[in-house]
Amino acid sequence: MEIYLDHAAATPVRPEVVEAMKKYFSKEFGNPGSFHTIGLRAKEAVDEARETIKKLINADKAEEIIFTGSGTESINLAIKGIARANKEKGKHIITSKIEHEAVLETYRYLEKYEDFKITSLDVDKFGMVSTEDLKKAIRKDTILISIMYANNEVGTILPIRQLAEIAKEKKIPFHTDACQAGGALNINVKELGADLMTLNSSKIYGPKGVGLLYVRTGLRILPLIHGGGQEFKLRSGTQNVPGIVGFAKALELAQAEKDQENIRLIKLRDRLIKGIIKKIPKTFLNGHPTERLPNNANLTFLDVEGEAMMLYLNEYGICASSGSACTSQSLDPSHVILALGLPYEVAHGTLRFTLGRKTTKKDIDKVLEVLPKIVESLRKISPVNLTVEEVMNQK
Amino acid sequence: MEIYLDHAAATPVRPEVVEAMKKYFSKEFGNPGSFHTIGLRAKEAVDEARETIKKLINADKAEEIIFTGSGTESINLAIKGIARANKEKGKHIITSKIEHEAVLETYRYLEKYEDFKITSLDVDKFGMVSTEDLKKAIRKDTILISIMYANNEVGTILPIRQLAEIAKEKKIPFHTDACQAGGALNINVKELGADLMTLNSSKIYGPKGVGLLYVRTGLRILPLIHGGGQEFKLRSGTQNVPGIVGFAKALELAQAEKDQENIRLIKLRDRLIKGIIKKIPKTFLNGHPTERLPNNANLTFLDVEGEAMMLYLNEYGICASSGSACTSQSLDPSHVILALGLPYEVAHGTLRFTLGRKTTKKDIDKVLEVLPKIVESLRKISPVNLTVEEVMNQK
Repeated sequence: MEIYLDHAAATPVRPEVVEAMKKYFSKEFGNPGSFHTIGLRAKEAVDEARETIKKLINADKAEEIIFTGSGTESINLAIKGIARANKEKGKHIITSKIEHEAVLETYRYLEKYEDFKITSLDVDKFGMVSTEDLKKAIRKDTILISIMYANNEVGTILPIRQLAEIAKEKKIPFHTDACQAGGALNINVKELGADLMTLNSSKIYGPKGVGLLYVRTGLRILPLIHGGGQEFKLRSGTQNVPGIVGFAKALELAQAEKDQENIRLIKLRDRLIKGIIKKIPKTFLNGHPTERLPNNANLTFLDVEGEAMMLYLNEYGICASSGSACTSQSLDPSHVILALGLPYEVAHGTLRFTLGRKTTKKDIDKVLEVLPKIVESLRKISPVNLTVEEVMNQK
Repeated sequence: MEIYLDHAAATPVRPEVVEAMKKYFSKEFGNPGSFHTIGLRAKEAVDEARETIKKLINADKAEEIIFTGSGTESINLAIKGIARANKEKGKHIITSKIEHEAVLETYRYLEKYEDFKITSLDVDKFGMVSTEDLKKAIRKDTILISIMYANNEVGTILPIRQLAEIAKEKKIPFHTDACQAGGALNINVKELGADLMTLNSSKIYGPKGVGLLYVRTGLRILPLIHGGGQEFKLRSGTQNVPGIVGFAKALELAQAEKDQENIRLIKLRDRLIKGIIKKIPKTFLNGHPTERLPNNANLTFLDVEGEAMMLYLNEYGICASSGSACTSQSLDPSHVILALGLPYEVAHGTLRFTLGRKTTKKDIDKVLEVLPKIVESLRKISPVNLTVEEVMNQK
């Protein structure tokens, strides 16, 4: 059995969630758009899931929840949907340098093909966006601010309330990508002040292939996918009934258990971080020391490649990641690690462990047993020999 | 137990398909983008599914199969993707008047917001597009022809090979929406001559929330959803592994069994059609008498509302449809029925039965027992009294 420490990339679907979904495959298989009994029962299931999520995120109306096919689609809908619907007002969008690829690539597209202008805010060495920077970046033609809630690579939790507050003062819609936050943090949209929020099922022990966008009533937004007009005309296509039911169940469980589970995870996470730093020289934590996701440990190891460490760990049955799963094919160092100020040659030496519901102390201790040996042997064959001081001076 | 005769709207997931998907929820739950063992096993599952589908549709390369979150998304990707990538060449698209809402609404969007021009070809009284009409409609700036393979409402099978042949001569990309065809017809893209083809899982006893677009190598196309670059950069977002595995399994089973199953369905379908026409006066078949989907019976009943018949049938536990599930909320008569030339006041009196794998002779006979009584009682309270001759003269 593998030790899986890559829960930011994917989570197993919880048995309770599979159980909730089950009957919607072969028994209650109707199209929620059909008017007969079988269709209406499918529609009821979707309505119920929407109602559950409405309460969990404290939305005003169920119609503010738009189900999509993924977190990425939700992000695309939020950004392109708001941008295209409001381009007469302006074509300027503000974001941060550490967003997920779904956000960044959407901007690249809008810049290249639709003439929008994007301001990407710098982050400090912990991955924090400053409210002052946001204030300064706002222009008369700013029509959207989109800043993530918690970073998928380094785990930093951003000051969404304060950032959203500024957006609100200026009457600019505020979107937050909360894909990594849904399982661990407060996702009350009123308390956060978010006008749009993206959540994803597959990161919170729900099924893959489902996401959602919360869209506050009154916002002007255009759909991305046109057709039969499902999801209040904002996302056409037959609803994925079992997926939606599973997503709601997973979010409900995650939110109910998060306080207790976070305490457990933080203990394990800190054991891992402290253990690694103690046992392996020339190693440091990335992201914020305290304002970080309970399950995230992201560390840089000088003179080694993250990719190599990851592969060696895999030999021992330990699944970790050298970056985001969504760009692990790329050979460039992570844009997030670079944004924290780490030099290019050091950024490569980064490893991310993201713990989960089944992670035990024994798993952590296995990593602490195996990893020092791996790093030592890799450093022996490494052509470079940096010191932490050199790196920190550059930073 | 209901008698479900609305398989064009949704199909139950086959037990073999649920079985194939099962292990990818909680056991093999990896992100196909991760490089560790668990990720690679998920990637293998997706690769295998893609390979299966590649063979089934006779594509050249697995990379020509792009998995999406629905048939609707696949259609949006095909049309917007080709339109936006080729707009320097021209902004004219040709389609037919009987396409699915996913096609029609996509055009409306492109016309309204991106200045494309759409020519919608008429159909004859059977729902057929003529090759002559297509030839005449082609302009120098035509960059896409998109015509459905089989109509979702009236079941007409369109002459895709001949239409695609014309597109090929003129070197214009040809897309076909084969959502209703995947379970019953030949979907060999080489034999059809399609450059792009949309398929949908939930119409062929696979799970909801998955579709695909076949994109022939060499076409210029832009993605609809940006992000991590999954699906050969054409559709970002973590792949829905169980959904994709289930889709491939469903398509494999459907294609293997279709010849035998079609014989069975045609017999039942014709028993239903002949029985209705014999037992209920002032009733006629819509769509083509022979070139039609083996499971589709679409009929118009003068002096009654389809909606009312549908609801009464539902009281007897029979699930049928008065139109496409994707627009059943709308009170307008079906654009497909109108395109066949039926007058507005008659188009409303239409009922669609779509048979499925579990449909039996007993089910059909139950409809034949119940429906005449329903129509008779509805006609008694109807304010109109048309004759078939009047209607046909108008047509």
